[in-house]
Amino acid sequence: MENKGMKASFNTIPGSVTAPQGFRSAGVFCDIKRLGTGKGSARGHKPDLALIVSDAPATVAGLFTTNQVCAAPVKVCLARMGKGPVQAIVANSGNANACTGKQGMKDALEMARFTEQALDLPDGSALVGSTGRIGLSLPMDNVRAGIVEAAVELGSTPDHAARAAEAILTSDTRRKEMAVEFALGDRRVRIGGICKGAGMIQPGMSATGRRPAAIPLHATMLCFLTTDAAIDAKPLQTALNHAVAGSFNRITVDGDMSTNDTVLILANGLAQNSKPQLSKPKSKDFLIFQEALNHVCLTLAQMIVRDGEGASRFVTVKVNGARSFAEADAAARAVANSALVKTSWHGGDPNWGRVIDALGYSPARIVEEKVDIGYSAPGSKKVLWSLRRGQPTKASFEALYAAVGFAEFDLHVNLNVGKSGALIYAADLTENYVEFNMGDVNDPDSLGG
Amino acid sequence: MENKGMKASFNTIPGSVTAPQGFRSAGVFCDIKRLGTGKGSARGHKPDLALIVSDAPATVAGLFTTNQVCAAPVKVCLARMGKGPVQAIVANSGNANACTGKQGMKDALEMARFTEQALDLPDGSALVGSTGRIGLSLPMDNVRAGIVEAAVELGSTPDHAARAAEAILTSDTRRKEMAVEFALGDRRVRIGGICKGAGMIQPGMSATGRRPAAIPLHATMLCFLTTDAAIDAKPLQTALNHAVAGSFNRITVDGDMSTNDTVLILANGLAQNSKPQLSKPKSKDFLIFQEALNHVCLTLAQMIVRDGEGASRFVTVKVNGARSFAEADAAARAVANSALVKTSWHGGDPNWGRVIDALGYSPARIVEEKVDIGYSAPGSKKVLWSLRRGQPTKASFEALYAAVGFAEFDLHVNLNVGKSGALIYAADLTENYVEFNMGDVNDPDSLGG
Repeated sequence: MENKGMKASFNTIPGSVTAPQGFRSAGVFCDIKRLGTGKGSARGHKPDLALIVSDAPATVAGLFTTNQVCAAPVKVCLARMGKGPVQAIVANSGNANACTGKQGMKDALEMARFTEQALDLPDGSALVGSTGRIGLSLPMDNVRAGIVEAAVELGSTPDHAARAAEAILTSDTRRKEMAVEFALGDRRVRIGGICKGAGMIQPGMSATGRRPAAIPLHATMLCFLTTDAAIDAKPLQTALNHAVAGSFNRITVDGDMSTNDTVLILANGLAQNSKPQLSKPKSKDFLIFQEALNHVCLTLAQMIVRDGEGASRFVTVKVNGARSFAEADAAARAVANSALVKTSWHGGDPNWGRVIDALGYSPARIVEEKVDIGYSAPGSKKVLWSLRRGQPTKASFEALYAAVGFAEFDLHVNLNVGKSGALIYAADLTENYVEFNMGDVNDPDSLGG
Repeated sequence: MENKGMKASFNTIPGSVTAPQGFRSAGVFCDIKRLGTGKGSARGHKPDLALIVSDAPATVAGLFTTNQVCAAPVKVCLARMGKGPVQAIVANSGNANACTGKQGMKDALEMARFTEQALDLPDGSALVGSTGRIGLSLPMDNVRAGIVEAAVELGSTPDHAARAAEAILTSDTRRKEMAVEFALGDRRVRIGGICKGAGMIQPGMSATGRRPAAIPLHATMLCFLTTDAAIDAKPLQTALNHAVAGSFNRITVDGDMSTNDTVLILANGLAQNSKPQLSKPKSKDFLIFQEALNHVCLTLAQMIVRDGEGASRFVTVKVNGARSFAEADAAARAVANSALVKTSWHGGDPNWGRVIDALGYSPARIVEEKVDIGYSAPGSKKVLWSLRRGQPTKASFEALYAAVGFAEFDLHVNLNVGKSGALIYAADLTENYVEFNMGDVNDPDSLGG
C-alpha cells in the first residue's frame, strides 16, 4: 500500500470531511453520557454527536465489524447498503448502543429517521454510527436535541469538520483528520476523512459484516470518508475494500475487535469527473482514485495506532517468507498481540526471544532453524538482524537496544518457508493502557467501548 | 476436576518432591545468570539449579510444550520418553536454553550426562528442564559446578525439597509445593510436586510435543512430580495426561505459550502397592491415584495463576452451553486473554460489555440474543446475572461492582447454543505486569523466559 518512491498523483490538503465539494458537518454536545450539569464545563462540553451531510445524493460503500455481536447502528447501516443514495451520517460517542436489544434497534433507526426529518431528506438516506460503553440504552431525548442543534450548526469550513472529528472521539487524545486532492481528467477531485479509535482496536471488517475466510479474527473504530468524485456504488465498494484491507484491517492496539467498527464513504459526484471512466476497474482514473483512497485510509489508520490507549511506540511488524498470506498474517498478529512482546517494546528491550516464542505458538508453520528476526528504522532496508536462520547473530546487545530505542521502528521477520508476506501496525502495551482501562466508575470517559 | 462434595480419598501432607519414599533433592546457586560477585548477596545467591533424584529406577511420564519453537531440554526429554527408567531431573532457572542451536542441544545433553556421572546413574536416566531468557547459551562451567554441589547437598527433608522448589523460580514471588498421601490397599502412597511459572503462561502441552487438534494454542511453566507408587509407564502417562488437561492446560496469565513448558512425573514403586492393580485403567486403585494426582496438579496450577506476574485477581471463567468443548474452550480463552477484560478485572469493573465483545470475536459460535453473563463467589452457584438472553438484567451497577470487588471470583457465561462447557483459570492484567515485563537490562531477573 505504500507509495514506493513513485511521485504520488495526489496532494495532501488541509481539512477533512468538508474538503470535498458539497459536504457540511457539525459536532455538538448533547450530554450522551448524561453527565448532568454538575460536571466541570471542560469535560461536560466535549462534543459527542457528529453530523455529516452531503448537499447532493451520494453513492455509498461501507465495511463493518465481523464480530458476531454487532451493535444496532451497524445493523442499520448493513440493512441500508445497496438500497440507494445516502445523504447523511449521524454518529455519537459515549454510548455504543450495543447489546441493547430491541430498544437499541429502535433507537438506532430513530437516530437515522430523526436526522432525515431534521434535514428534510428522503427515508433511508441517513446512516448511523455509535461508539462508547456497551450495554446501555441511548438517552434519545438528548440525541434528538443534539441532532436538531447539529442541523443548525452545519457548515463547510475546516472548523466544522474538526468539530465533527472531535465529536466521535472517546479515549482518543486528539482528532484524526485527513484530506487529499487529485486530478481526474480536467477535474479536481477530493477525498476527506475523519476517524476515531484508541482502544478495542483490531478491526477485521467486511462489507457484509460476515467473516470471509480471508479476514482474520480481530476496535471500536469509526471512519467516515467523503468525496466529490462521481463513481458508481460497486466500484466505490471495490476501492474501499482494497483500501481498508491495507489499512484499518492491518492495525492492532490491544487485539480486541469491537462490536461497532464501521468505515463509510459517501461520493456525491459534484466534482463532475467522468463517472463511467472512474467506475471502470483498472482504468487510469480508478487507479488514481484507489491510490488516493489508500493513502487517506492508511494515514488515518496509522493515526489510530499512534494514539492507541497508553501507546508509547509504533511498531510495524513485517513478516515475510510465509507459506501463505493467511499464515504471514497470523504470524504477524501473534507477535503484534503478544503481551510479552508488547511490554518489551514499551521498555525498549530487543527481546527477540519473545518474538520467536510468539511465532512458535502462532498457527503459521515455522521452522526454528529458518527464522530471521531483525530491526530497522521505519521503512528502512538497513536491517540489524538479531537472529539469522534460528541462530543469534553477533549483533551486540548495545546495538540491538539502540535499534529499538525509538518511538517508531520496524520489526522484520523472515520465516524462510515460503514467499508470502503480511504486515501489521501495532502499539506497545503500557502501564497507562492498564490504568486507563481499569475503568473508573467515577469517570464515565474512562468506560470505553 | 473438582472434588464435588465427596470425601476425598487423599490427605494433604507437608512437603513436596521428597515426601514420597526414596526421593532426595537439592537446590544450589551456581550463578547461571553470571551475575558475578559484585551483586548483593541476597540476589546473587538465589538458588538457580535444582536436582531431584530417586534412589530406585522410576517409571516416567511427561507432557511438553506444543510451541513449534521448542527448547533443547524439551527435545532431550522428548527423546528419552519411553526409553526406560529414569532416576534424576536436573533443572536450572535464569536461562531457557531455547533458540541456542546445536550448542544448546549439546549443553542440554551434557547437563543430563554430567548429572548421570556425578550420581553414578546409568546413561539416559536423567531428564533436563530449563527456564529463563531465550537465546543465550548456558554457562556450562557454572552448570557443572552446580551439579557437583547439588549432588553433595542432596537430602530428603522438606527443606531439601523447598530448596529445589526455590531453585526453579524466575519471576515467581514464592515457592510452589504440594504433597498428598492416600491408601492403595494396605499401602500408603504419596505424590509430591513443585512447580514454577509466573509469566509466558498459557500452556498447551502434549505427550509428544506435537499439537493434537484437541489442544488449543496457548508459559514457561515447569512442574516436577514424584511418587512412590508402583505403576507402569503407560497408565502413568494416561493419568498425567488427564491431570494436566484439567489443570496446567487450563490456566492463563498472559496468553503466551512458552518454548519450555514441561511436566514430568517419576514413580519409583517404593510404596510397594500392587503394580498390576494400579496399572489397570478404571481399577479402584487407578481412580484413587488419578483423583490424588488431579488434586496435586490443579492446586499447583492455581498457585501459578495466583502468583502470575503482577496479578491481583484470580478469575475462573466458566463457559457453558457451547456447541462443543473446542468452542467452549475457545470462548473461555478469548475472554480470559482479552486485554480489555483483564484490565477491567484489575479495576474491579463489572464490564460485561467487554466480555460479550470477546465472545463475539472468538471462533466459538455465539448468538447475542442467547448469551447469559454473570458473577459469583468462587465455586458458588448463587450467580448474579448481568445479562440474560442478550438483555441487561435489572442487577444494579452497585451489586455488580460488589460481585467483582473480590480478589477471587467466578465469571459465568452460558452461550445457550449447545451442551458443552470449559473453564479457564486466569489472572488479571496490571500495571505491575507491564512494569515487570518492560525488562530492565540492568536487572537480569526481570528478563523472564
